[in-house]
Amino acid sequence: MKVSIIGGTGDQGLGLALRFAMSGEDVIIGSRDIKKAENAVDVIKNMLGKEEIDNLTPMTNPDAAAVGDIVVLTVPLQAQMVTLKSIKDEVEGKIFVDATVPLETCLGGKPTRYVDLWEGSAVERSAEFLKDQNVKVVSAFNNISAASLTNIPEDVQCDCLISGDDPEAKKAVMELAEKIPGVKSIDCGALENARIVEKITAMLINLNIRNKVKLAGIRITGL
Amino acid sequence: MKVSIIGGTGDQGLGLALRFAMSGEDVIIGSRDIKKAENAVDVIKNMLGKEEIDNLTPMTNPDAAAVGDIVVLTVPLQAQMVTLKSIKDEVEGKIFVDATVPLETCLGGKPTRYVDLWEGSAVERSAEFLKDQNVKVVSAFNNISAASLTNIPEDVQCDCLISGDDPEAKKAVMELAEKIPGVKSIDCGALENARIVEKITAMLINLNIRNKVKLAGIRITGL
Repeated sequence: MKVSIIGGTGDQGLGLALRFAMSGEDVIIGSRDIKKAENAVDVIKNMLGKEEIDNLTPMTNPDAAAVGDIVVLTVPLQAQMVTLKSIKDEVEGKIFVDATVPLETCLGGKPTRYVDLWEGSAVERSAEFLKDQNVKVVSAFNNISAASLTNIPEDVQCDCLISGDDPEAKKAVMELAEKIPGVKSIDCGALENARIVEKITAMLINLNIRNKVKLAGIRITGL
Repeated sequence: MKVSIIGGTGDQGLGLALRFAMSGEDVIIGSRDIKKAENAVDVIKNMLGKEEIDNLTPMTNPDAAAVGDIVVLTVPLQAQMVTLKSIKDEVEGKIFVDATVPLETCLGGKPTRYVDLWEGSAVERSAEFLKDQNVKVVSAFNNISAASLTNIPEDVQCDCLISGDDPEAKKAVMELAEKIPGVKSIDCGALENARIVEKITAMLINLNIRNKVKLAGIRITGL
């Protein structure tokens, strides 16, 4: 299973690439700029204290999208649409995971506030844009902080809330998420439920700021 | 400290009254109809297997609001405004806690969906309505299910996410919430952050339905 991280040089993408590479997945780090992707691979090698990692490859975003079985988008909201346009033709028929969160920072505002999107959520915006590509769109990884992903060797103390309308694609992403030590996947039902999940990120950032920490996360109890 | 539960005969209000009475607080159950409030007291006596509970009193909503130090509103969204009108003159200067959640059920829709309110959240709607009453408005208890509150003698496996603009009032409500065994209070900052917290309830109801359980809750990790 090849996992491509589009925007893999940002904090969240780099953290996911790190954890998936550690779990033995074939990971492709995508970036607009191949040099940035190569640099991200070097950063991860450095974090792991390894000279070589044979399951981690740098590519441009379109090349990364073309080779991935699961394509994960991890960009700020203001870069979501331009990035989608650059990979649209490459994701036909694939599992596409959107981790975008609609934070007010996209408008020069606060990371503790969300913005309302016409489609309801950032992932539904992707789904609308890709609706003619036969893409199986899944929402995941929104609430897991970059800081906890890069906080190796500690487990991640956060559940992964996953929404999507294609049961098989959702199952594949739930299995992928649980390759991160400490993460439990929670099936949140239809894609539209990401409207709630994406907003939780703003609350967790708020709790991080209020408590001067970086690892705030959530667990679902009682299931 | 007298705690008045306005709409205390509904599931959520009755559950809170039960837990607060068990913890030794002076609790007043308010209802539009005094007979319904008396009946709720009998239900709680029955749950506890006691003939008498000397710290649990039935009253009409306005009388309950008048005697409470902390007044907690637990009604469906469609009853929020009419109930507020009935107690507006009684809550002057008090701590007012709103546990209302803006579920789509208020429109004959699904409990797994929220509706957007003009003020941003149900509790901000209350704050706007009560703005001339010098009321200290706090958002709390939205995410703690009635089923877990009435599931005695088990602890409640859910954190209480609390938002408010008056630090002293928020502190008092955080202390009150932690009288429920198992509950940890989380300070979520300003009242406006209830816009996220209230929506989480719809997600937890969704998880309950999907998993055929009743006790889904959330815990915050990493603080």
